[in-house]
Amino acid sequence: MLKSGPRPGRPRDSHIDQAVLKAARELLAESGYTRVTMDATAARAGVGKAAIYRRFGSKAELLFAAAVHGMDIEPPADSGSLRGDLRAMAQVIHERLATPAAREVTPALLAEMSRDPALAARLQSTFVARERRDLEVIMERAHQRGELSRPGDPALAHLLLGGPLFVALLVLPGPLDEDRLDDIASVIAAGLIAHASGPARSG
Amino acid sequence: MLKSGPRPGRPRDSHIDQAVLKAARELLAESGYTRVTMDATAARAGVGKAAIYRRFGSKAELLFAAAVHGMDIEPPADSGSLRGDLRAMAQVIHERLATPAAREVTPALLAEMSRDPALAARLQSTFVARERRDLEVIMERAHQRGELSRPGDPALAHLLLGGPLFVALLVLPGPLDEDRLDDIASVIAAGLIAHASGPARSG
Repeated sequence: MLKSGPRPGRPRDSHIDQAVLKAARELLAESGYTRVTMDATAARAGVGKAAIYRRFGSKAELLFAAAVHGMDIEPPADSGSLRGDLRAMAQVIHERLATPAAREVTPALLAEMSRDPALAARLQSTFVARERRDLEVIMERAHQRGELSRPGDPALAHLLLGGPLFVALLVLPGPLDEDRLDDIASVIAAGLIAHASGPARSG
Repeated sequence: MLKSGPRPGRPRDSHIDQAVLKAARELLAESGYTRVTMDATAARAGVGKAAIYRRFGSKAELLFAAAVHGMDIEPPADSGSLRGDLRAMAQVIHERLATPAAREVTPALLAEMSRDPALAARLQSTFVARERRDLEVIMERAHQRGELSRPGDPALAHLLLGGPLFVALLVLPGPLDEDRLDDIASVIAAGLIAHASGPARSG
């Protein structure tokens, strides 16, 4: 049901964005992934359902943005080293994935993606592509600094950094303390630097 | 319902193991995770339900063993280098996770683990601990060879190798070809070698 009555004093778009994401987060905490609906989110946010569909193609995309991150993420500030930048990125990924909302959304999203390859492709071409761009910036910085003899493949770096954190936080939850984050960033930074100085892959 | 009639010519235990796992895999393929039951598995395997419960504490554990791996896994043969051993291990993990059964079981298992921390702890202390032992063997070999100046932390190596493969196969499915597996193994081997030569962590 669209709720599209008169909206005097209609807020600017970013206010709608924030209201929609806040409503989705509240509903997620109150009733869990499966019970959140676009209708309930629209009603809670005080916007029309069309306003939500203009922003998010599906409930899965809305709840990803509400629980994990949106399209407005930025890479961490330049720390002066690849290791430092990867450590900062590890912290950011940790903060995104360690929330109750992310833990609630992930299993349900994976189940939905496994049933719906088109959804999986949309999430990859939007949110995941956005994550990879941050790794691209970090690797380009390392190349400019002379740490990486070539910029390398941001998709590889994204998998190498994000994979262990995803598994440690959402698949095999266990202690993921500062030391472990340091170790992950150190191993990957050293590995990428050694790998970049090897022979380039043809093609 | 227990099916426990007379069992003339009762097979040895390993035959029961194989019959139970085969029955579970068939049911998984036919009807999906949620519809597989211990009763149906017992009936299909021609064994008593108690025989299944002696082996697996729950349906989740049965289906993990049927779809991913059991407790009888072994590390790959010594390839002569850490990089080679990690590459072989990456191949093994790829083969385990790329099957339709693993893709079917994973989202459901994650959802069940997120609702049931005791199950998550049991899976960690059995199957996951078993996976880590293979990494421990591989790192100990590298230490004996002189590649790693200390054996290092197998849980870290397990996360670093398994995390990217889990994500690439089950979370963000995309091309995971031989080159990508080579790159993952190379970066992690080089990274672990560099990391082991750094200062040891106190504690």
